[in-house]
Amino acid sequence: MGLAGKVLTLFEGIVKGDRASLSRGITLVESTRLDHRKQARELVSACARLERPRSLRIGLTGTPGVGKSTFIEAFGMLLLSKGHGAVDPSSSRSGGSILGDKTRMQDLSVAQGAYVRPSPSRGSLGGVARSTMESIILAEASGYDICLVETVGVGQSETMVADMVDMFVLLLQPGSGDELQGVKRGIMELADLIVINKADGALEIPAKLTRTEIANALHLMVPRRKSWNPKCVRASAVTGYNLDRVWTLIQGYFDGLRLSGEWDSLRAGQQSKWMWREVHNLLMARINDDPDTRGFAETLKADVANGSVPPSVAAEQIVEMFLSSYSARQIKTNSES
Amino acid sequence: MGLAGKVLTLFEGIVKGDRASLSRGITLVESTRLDHRKQARELVSACARLERPRSLRIGLTGTPGVGKSTFIEAFGMLLLSKGHGAVDPSSSRSGGSILGDKTRMQDLSVAQGAYVRPSPSRGSLGGVARSTMESIILAEASGYDICLVETVGVGQSETMVADMVDMFVLLLQPGSGDELQGVKRGIMELADLIVINKADGALEIPAKLTRTEIANALHLMVPRRKSWNPKCVRASAVTGYNLDRVWTLIQGYFDGLRLSGEWDSLRAGQQSKWMWREVHNLLMARINDDPDTRGFAETLKADVANGSVPPSVAAEQIVEMFLSSYSARQIKTNSES
Ligand SMILES: Nc1nc2c(ncn2[C@@H]2O[C@H](COP(=O)(O)OP(=O)(O)OP(=O)(O)O)[C@@H](O)[C@H]2O)c(=O)[nH]1
Ligand SMILES: Nc1nc2c(ncn2[C@@H]2O[C@H](COP(=O)(O)OP(=O)(O)OP(=O)(O)O)[C@@H](O)[C@H]2O)c(=O)[nH]1
Ligand SMILES: [Mg+2]
Ligand SMILES: [Mg+2]
Repeated sequence: MGLAGKVLTLFEGIVKGDRASLSRGITLVESTRLDHRKQARELVSACARLERPRSLRIGLTGTPGVGKSTFIEAFGMLLLSKGHGAVDPSSSRSGGSILGDKTRMQDLSVAQGAYVRPSPSRGSLGGVARSTMESIILAEASGYDICLVETVGVGQSETMVADMVDMFVLLLQPGSGDELQGVKRGIMELADLIVINKADGALEIPAKLTRTEIANALHLMVPRRKSWNPKCVRASAVTGYNLDRVWTLIQGYFDGLRLSGEWDSLRAGQQSKWMWREVHNLLMARINDDPDTRGFAETLKADVANGSVPPSVAAEQIVEMFLSSYSARQIKTNSES
Repeated sequence: MGLAGKVLTLFEGIVKGDRASLSRGITLVESTRLDHRKQARELVSACARLERPRSLRIGLTGTPGVGKSTFIEAFGMLLLSKGHGAVDPSSSRSGGSILGDKTRMQDLSVAQGAYVRPSPSRGSLGGVARSTMESIILAEASGYDICLVETVGVGQSETMVADMVDMFVLLLQPGSGDELQGVKRGIMELADLIVINKADGALEIPAKLTRTEIANALHLMVPRRKSWNPKCVRASAVTGYNLDRVWTLIQGYFDGLRLSGEWDSLRAGQQSKWMWREVHNLLMARINDDPDTRGFAETLKADVANGSVPPSVAAEQIVEMFLSSYSARQIKTNSES
């Protein structure tokens, strides 16, 4: 399949590492317009076929105010100084989603080789997940070897991101166990590395206590990986304290994945899961786009809610309606042409 | 829609509270044969339309050997002595799935008004979930006012059952926190009531310590219900110690649900979730039943796993293939008739 026109230009720009092309490519994969989807599929497919070394896909989460943006900026600069290209491909710079983070992210986003995108706040979870996944593929084709995917740490987005990245980093603040309640409990279990951020000034001592508490809690958990036990470390995005240590731990984690062969199976499992999840999303979108089926589901709603129609029976009716309505349209199209 | 023949006979038997009819009804909803599904839909729909007081749907989980079967037997007898009809509709008595539990369950299953089914060990999770859901509807139509749904406590089945029941009871044994590792951590968060079973003989004192430990852990968790804080209680299925207390706590829980109005919204949310989950299951089954689409997905597998085909692109191709293959068959059927 040869690329042509706009898609070819984008592809060539991305492969050369041109920042503007990557940005336009990400905007393209974020669009849901049918013609854009077609172009996006071509672009992403071409990028996926390139032989590139695997990038380190790292999810970063934490409650609002914990210092994610500050941390990514400081950590990103550190990576750049070591010659790595770091990118947060999770949202489009175009559109309004960057706003508040603009000034703080400035340092990193102008530095050569880094590409930062704050986490998105718009669109459906499924849609965001798909476009993030595709953006990662584009960023990798563009030569970035580290993808930092930021999530807000309060919704369902973490488990989705956890299925998309190789490693999951949780940022916490110094403070007692009560503060942990802001973080959904399942997220502790996903974390391969917990960073107690803001370990500076008056918070240095509390950070030590928190680290001990968290390290104890981690001992009670079953590790997600055979090759790695989750670790907890203090750091400061402001003073830069221990950022080097964080990087060393991250490298240790990936060494384990590589040597144990877990990285291969992890990626293979994720990709297949993503494919089927996306099949689900696409079919649900089709159902939702079909006025007959949507209307029918709407009329069932109250009876299903009050229990007078069994959910399983309603479901079979919806599926029948959807498929027959789809093929009726095909038959109509066929007989008209 | 009028019922006829076999389905009508089953329906009438179930409504009369005839045990054999209920058993045959459950066997019917567990079948995946197309003609059986059609009959099952009719039967379940008729049962759902009956005006019945809501039954207490209670999930019961715990690691193997913790005493689930013993507990259900003793607790079921207690409920019977209080005039309640208790049922575990989660599996068919027909087939081989009862086996080991047969003797232990004897007491309860012969007692008038009780109907016990151990948790199933065969079939897909989605299929088991659907048939359990439908079995609950049949059991309720048959007059049972308490449904105990047992799960094994180690897989994904708990979260499914949690979406199906009103209350979730976790059985633990006396012992240190280490033992908790056998229970998936997310399950603690689902539990509305934790019973430290085997609080008898030499285990009485350890049971006290475990209860305190667990009660402390529960304090750190965000309650699932506005009207109820999860509780932890010791009991013994063998001596009968505290079984009365367990029943009082369960009643308190349901009083809270009733008074706060949470029960209505809980059920409504569950039913709608079930409907869409079932839509998903049915569509996936259709994809799997279509040889063209299944074959196509098979050929994509390796490339998706190694990353050379993006999952999102593969998914769009699978959906296209499935829908066009479906309507091609319809068109063929149409033109032949
Ligand atoms: N003392 C100290 N303050 C920090 C550190 N990191 C971040 N902060 C401060 O914490 C506040 C929030 O930091 P952000 O980076 O905006 O936090 P965030 O997690 O991105 O917040 P949201 O974008 O709202 O989710 C700012 O005032 C930062 O200056 C740190 O390491 N030490
Ligand atoms: N001392 C004591 N033993 C108990 C109690 N409840 C169950 N047991 C014993 O624990 C063992 C396991 O009990 P079961 O009821 O079969 O446990 P289960 O959870 O159903 O186990 P699985 O069906 O394998 O998942 C049996 O030997 C029971 O007699 C109790 O309250 N006290
Ligand atoms: Mg931020
Ligand atoms: Mg048992």
